[in-house]
Amino acid sequence: MGLNSNRVENFSGNEATIIRVSTTDSTLLPPPPLEVHSVCLPPKTTTFQKLKHRLSEIFFPDDPLHRFKNQTLLRKLVLALQFLFPIFQWAPEYDLRLFKSDVISGVTIASLAIPQGISYAKLANLPPIVGLYSSFVPPLIYSILGSSKHLAVGPVSIASLVMGSMLSETVSYSQEPILYLKLAFTATFFAGLFQASLGLLRLGFVIDFLSKATLVGFMAGAAVIVSLQQLKGLLGIVHFTTKMQFVPVMSSVFKQKDEWSWQSFVMGVIFLIFLLTTRHISIRRPKLFWISAAAPLTSVVLSTTLVFLLRSKAHGITIIGRLPEGLNPPSSNMLYLSGPYLALAVKTGIITGILSLTEGIAVGRTFATMKNYQVDGNKEMMAIGLMNMAGSCSSCFVTTGSFSRSAVNYNAGAQTAISNIVMATAVLVTLLFLMPLFHYTPNVILGAIIITAVIGLIDYQAALRLWKVDKLDFLACICSFVGVLFISVPLGLAIAVGVSVFKILLHVTRPNTTVLGNIQGTHTYQSLSRYRVASKVPSFLILAVESPIYFANSTYLQERILRWVREEEEWIKENNQSALKCLILDMTAVTSIDTSGIDALVEIRKMVEKRSLKLVLASPVGNVMEKLDKSQTLDSFRSNGLYMTVGEAVADISSLWKCQP
Amino acid sequence: MGLNSNRVENFSGNEATIIRVSTTDSTLLPPPPLEVHSVCLPPKTTTFQKLKHRLSEIFFPDDPLHRFKNQTLLRKLVLALQFLFPIFQWAPEYDLRLFKSDVISGVTIASLAIPQGISYAKLANLPPIVGLYSSFVPPLIYSILGSSKHLAVGPVSIASLVMGSMLSETVSYSQEPILYLKLAFTATFFAGLFQASLGLLRLGFVIDFLSKATLVGFMAGAAVIVSLQQLKGLLGIVHFTTKMQFVPVMSSVFKQKDEWSWQSFVMGVIFLIFLLTTRHISIRRPKLFWISAAAPLTSVVLSTTLVFLLRSKAHGITIIGRLPEGLNPPSSNMLYLSGPYLALAVKTGIITGILSLTEGIAVGRTFATMKNYQVDGNKEMMAIGLMNMAGSCSSCFVTTGSFSRSAVNYNAGAQTAISNIVMATAVLVTLLFLMPLFHYTPNVILGAIIITAVIGLIDYQAALRLWKVDKLDFLACICSFVGVLFISVPLGLAIAVGVSVFKILLHVTRPNTTVLGNIQGTHTYQSLSRYRVASKVPSFLILAVESPIYFANSTYLQERILRWVREEEEWIKENNQSALKCLILDMTAVTSIDTSGIDALVEIRKMVEKRSLKLVLASPVGNVMEKLDKSQTLDSFRSNGLYMTVGEAVADISSLWKCQP
Repeated sequence: MGLNSNRVENFSGNEATIIRVSTTDSTLLPPPPLEVHSVCLPPKTTTFQKLKHRLSEIFFPDDPLHRFKNQTLLRKLVLALQFLFPIFQWAPEYDLRLFKSDVISGVTIASLAIPQGISYAKLANLPPIVGLYSSFVPPLIYSILGSSKHLAVGPVSIASLVMGSMLSETVSYSQEPILYLKLAFTATFFAGLFQASLGLLRLGFVIDFLSKATLVGFMAGAAVIVSLQQLKGLLGIVHFTTKMQFVPVMSSVFKQKDEWSWQSFVMGVIFLIFLLTTRHISIRRPKLFWISAAAPLTSVVLSTTLVFLLRSKAHGITIIGRLPEGLNPPSSNMLYLSGPYLALAVKTGIITGILSLTEGIAVGRTFATMKNYQVDGNKEMMAIGLMNMAGSCSSCFVTTGSFSRSAVNYNAGAQTAISNIVMATAVLVTLLFLMPLFHYTPNVILGAIIITAVIGLIDYQAALRLWKVDKLDFLACICSFVGVLFISVPLGLAIAVGVSVFKILLHVTRPNTTVLGNIQGTHTYQSLSRYRVASKVPSFLILAVESPIYFANSTYLQERILRWVREEEEWIKENNQSALKCLILDMTAVTSIDTSGIDALVEIRKMVEKRSLKLVLASPVGNVMEKLDKSQTLDSFRSNGLYMTVGEAVADISSLWKCQP
Repeated sequence: MGLNSNRVENFSGNEATIIRVSTTDSTLLPPPPLEVHSVCLPPKTTTFQKLKHRLSEIFFPDDPLHRFKNQTLLRKLVLALQFLFPIFQWAPEYDLRLFKSDVISGVTIASLAIPQGISYAKLANLPPIVGLYSSFVPPLIYSILGSSKHLAVGPVSIASLVMGSMLSETVSYSQEPILYLKLAFTATFFAGLFQASLGLLRLGFVIDFLSKATLVGFMAGAAVIVSLQQLKGLLGIVHFTTKMQFVPVMSSVFKQKDEWSWQSFVMGVIFLIFLLTTRHISIRRPKLFWISAAAPLTSVVLSTTLVFLLRSKAHGITIIGRLPEGLNPPSSNMLYLSGPYLALAVKTGIITGILSLTEGIAVGRTFATMKNYQVDGNKEMMAIGLMNMAGSCSSCFVTTGSFSRSAVNYNAGAQTAISNIVMATAVLVTLLFLMPLFHYTPNVILGAIIITAVIGLIDYQAALRLWKVDKLDFLACICSFVGVLFISVPLGLAIAVGVSVFKILLHVTRPNTTVLGNIQGTHTYQSLSRYRVASKVPSFLILAVESPIYFANSTYLQERILRWVREEEEWIKENNQSALKCLILDMTAVTSIDTSGIDALVEIRKMVEKRSLKLVLASPVGNVMEKLDKSQTLDSFRSNGLYMTVGEAVADISSLWKCQP
C-alpha cells in the first residue's frame, strides 16, 4: 500500500493546531467517491442466547475454563487440581535454589510479622497474642490456595483499625473482653465467608467500586487516625476514648494531660525516629530493604531489654505483660451466630472483608505485574476468604496480603508461597518457646511500629496527581479522607463510593455532544472545535452523541440537540449561508439505548421534521440497531435515514439533492 | 461529488448479510492511499472555564437567556416579564374566539373536576371539601405562571393515594383528624417547596430518574391498589385497614364480610358499568370525549337524586353528609413546622412532590408536542411548586396537571390557560352556592369514579413493548409494580430507581468490546460479526471499546482485552496465519476516562508489549486526549501509537513494517 504521507507529530503541543504536511496537494482535491453500504443488524440471537452471553461476560470474562479445552481426561484432572490448588502448578519444579531464596525472605518477613502482628492486634483492641496466632494459620492456608508468589499474609493495619473501631463503638473491649473477642472472631468468619462467596459467585467486580481515588483518600484518613490513636501509647495515657474520629481522639489526648508520662514519650519518640530513619533509608535505596525490615524487631529487642533493666524505675511505661505460650487454641465454639450483636459482627465482617480483599488483591496484582505472571482475582478471593474462615476457627482475626511485608518479601527475593510457610514456622517457634521474652515489651514501641507502618499509606503524590488529571476523582478522594477522619469508616467509604458512582451517572445524565466537520480530502468527520482542518459541510449539521441514550439523559439530549439546531440556524441566518437541510447523528458512541432513548429519538425526528430537516443516523452499533428494529422505529429511518458512516451519509444525501433539487 | 453507488436496502432483513451492489468492480481494488493526520488535543481551557462549561451544561442545557441576547432594554424587560409570567406571552393576542373555546373546555373539565376532586380527597383520607378547595386556588395560580396551554390542574389520583397511604400509616385520620389535616397541608407545602426549588436550582433532571419503564409499573401497581381500596366504598365496609399493601387490603375485605351491604354493592356496580362504558365509547371515538367527560357528574347527580328519594330505605348506603359552604379558608396557621411528625410530612411532601411533578410535566410535554409548542421543564416546576405552596396556605392538598382532565381539556378545544380560570370559576360557584346538593351523594359513587379514572393507568401494552424491546427496562417496570403492590410506595419506587441505575452501572461495569474488520475497498472498520463484507486485517487485532473506561470497568477491560489477544493468537496458531503484531484500540466510544482507566491503559500497554505487540489508540475523543496528556501517558504513545482513525493507523503501520521488516 503506497503511502504519500510525511508527518509532523505535534499532538501534545499547546495549541489546538494540527500540523500536517502532505507531499501532494491532495488536500485541495475532493476525496475519492464513496460507495454506500447498507447498515446491518447483528446476527439474530434468542433471548436465552443473549442472556447466556451477557451472564458469561458478567461472571466469566476471563473464560477460566479455556485451559481445559481439547485436553485428555488425565490432563484435565491435573489441570483441575492445579486450578483448585495453585501450589501444584509450581511444586513439581521446586528446587533447592528456590528454597534458599524462600527461606531468606521467609525469615525476613517473620522478623517483621511478629512485632507487627502484636501491634495490629492492639490496634484492633485484641489481645496481642491473637496477632501472632493470625500470622501462623492463615499464611499456611494461603500458601496452598493462593496464586500470588509474593503475597506476605497476616494482619494488616487498615482492616485491624476498622474492625477495632466498628466493634468498640458498640462493645467495650475492656469491660466485656470475651464478648469482644467472640465478635472479632465472628466478624472474621463473616469477612471470610463474604470474600469466599464473592470469589465463588465470581462477583469480584464488587471491589472494583472502591476506586483507586477512593482508596488513596481512605488510606490517608485511616493512617492519620491510626497515628493519632497511637498518642495513647506514646503519651502513656490510660483512659482513652474508644471512638475513632478526629475530634474525640484529639480531645481525649488533651483532656487526659495529667496521665501523660514523659518516660513513655521520650522512649516512643526515640524509637519512632529510629524506625522512620531506617524506613527512609530503605525507600531511598531499595537494596537496603533489610534495614527497615529488621528495624521493628530490633526496636522490640532493644526496648524490651531496656525496660527489663530499668524495670524498678520505669513506672510511666506500660508493658505487654504475660503472653500465653502454645499454639492457636480452637475458637469455632466462640463464633457468635445468634443474638443481639450478630448484625454488628456481620456488618463489621463485610466491611473489613471488602477492605482486606481490596488490599490483598491490589498487592497481589502489583507484584504479579512486576514479575509478569497472572493473579486470578476470583481465585484470590476464595483463597483469602477460606484462610479467614479457617482463621476464625483457630483464634485468628482478619488477615490478608500486607503491602509493606509483601514488598519486603519481594525485595528479599521470595520465589514462591513457601516463604509464607517459612514465616509461619518462625511464628510457630515464637509461639511455642519465645513468648516469655515479650513480657517486658513496652506498649509504646508497638505504637511507634504502627505509626511507621501506616505513615506510608499517606500518598499525597497520588492525591496531587488526581487533582491534576481528574477533579472529580480528587473529590472522591477528599470525600473519603474527610469522611473517614470526621464521620466514620463505613460512612466515609459509602460517601466516597457514592461520589464515584455519581460521577458515572453525571457523565450519563449530561453527555457531551460535539459538532463534527469534514477533514479535508477525506471521508472522515471529526470535532470542529478540536481539528482546525475540519470544516463544516454546507446544509448539514453533524452531531456526535457521546453516551448511551437512557431515561436519565433522553430529555436532556432532546433539548440539547434542538438547541444545536436552533443555534446553527441562527448562525446560518447571520452569515447568509445555505439553509440547513439535514441533521446527522453520529451514533458510534451511543453504545446502548433503552425504551426512553428510543422514544427520544422518535421525538427528535418529529421535531426536526417540523423544521423541515431530515434526520439521519450514522453508524449505529449492533445492539442499538437491534432495539430500533424491535421497537419498529427502524422502519421510519428506512429511506435514506441510516448509513454505515457519516461520510457515506453526507455523500449519498448530497448526491440525492443534486438529482432532485 | 460524483457517486458510483447503487444501493439495495436490506437492513431489516433476517440475516446479517449485507447486500451491496456497486457499479464498478472497485471492491476488488485496494482503497485509495491515505494521508495520516496527527491527533489534536482540544483547545486549552482553564479549570475555571471547564467548570463553568460543565455547570452550564448541567444547569442551563437549554440556554434560557438566549432570547435576551442583542435586545433593547425595553424589549428585555418585556421578555423578562413574559419569561416569569407566561400569561403575558399570549394575553395580548387573546380574543373572543379563543375565549369561547376556553369557556366550553373550562366548563367541561369543571364537570369532571368537581366529582373527581371530592373523590381524590377521599382517596387521601381528607374531607371531601378539600378536594374542591384544591380545584379552585391552584388552577388560578397555574394559569398565570404555567407555560402549558392544555394542562388541567387539580388533585390527581396517584399523588392523593400516596399522600393518604404515607400519612395514614403513622397518623390515624379518623382518630386525629386535625393532626392529619395539618400534616396533609404541611406535606403539600413541602411538596411545593421541593418542586419550586428543583425548578429554581434547575435540577429538573432529578425527575428523569423515574424512567418511563418505572412509571408504567408504578402506575399499574398504584391503580390496582386504589381500585382494591375502593372495595371499601363499593361493599359499604365501615371498618377498613389504613394500610395500602395488597395483602392487608384483601384480608380486610374478607374479614369484614358481615359489614358488606348489598344495596351499596348493586348501586356501585351499576354506576361502575355505566362509567366504564362511557369511557370505552370515548376511547373508541375521541370526538365523543364529552360522553366520558360528562359521565361522572351525571352519575353523581343521578345517584344523589336516587339516594335522596330513597333516603328512608337505603340504610346500607353511606353518604358524604354536610359540606361547609364558602371559599377556601386560610390554612397557613395549620402548617406543622416543628414536632415529631415533621419528618413524616417532609418525606411525604418530597415523594408526592416528585410524583405529581413527573405527572404534570409529562402531561404538559405530551400536549405541547401535539400542538407544537415548547414547555419549559424548569419553569413548569416553579409554577407547580408555587401553586402547591400557595395551595397549602389555602386549605388545598397536593395538585398537579391531571392526565385524564387535560386530555378532556385538549379534546374540548382548550386554547389557553384561561380554561383553568373558567374551571376555577365554576368550582367557585359550586363552593359558594351548590354545596348542600352533595349532602346525599353516596360514597360508593366516588369509589366508582376513582376506579374508572385509575383503570386507564394500567398500560399493559406499554409493559409488553418493554418486554419486547428491553428486558432490563421490563425488570424495572415489574419491580416497581410488585414493590408498590406488596411493599410500599416509597420503597417500591426506590427499588425501581435502583434497578434503573443498576442497569446503567452494569453497562459501564461490563462494557462491550467488538473485533473490527476492514470493509472491503474502504478505510472503514466495522464489527466483524455484524458485517460479512468486513474482513480481518492480517497481523492486526482491532478492538472497539464501547464504553468510557472507569474504575468500575478498568480491571474487566484489562482482562477482556488480554483474552481477545490470547484467543486471537490461538486462532492464528491453529490456522497458520501471519503472527499478530499490533493491537489497535478504537477509542471512539471511550467518551471519558478517569485515573483508574489511564492506569489500565498503561497496564494493557505493558502486558501487550511483553507479548511483543504494539498498542495503538485510534480516534480518542477530546477529553480522553486531555487526560492522557495531563497524566503524561500520551508521551508513551508518541511514536506511531496514536492515530486519528483506525484506517490511518492500519495504513501507516503496515507501510512502516514494509519499510523496516
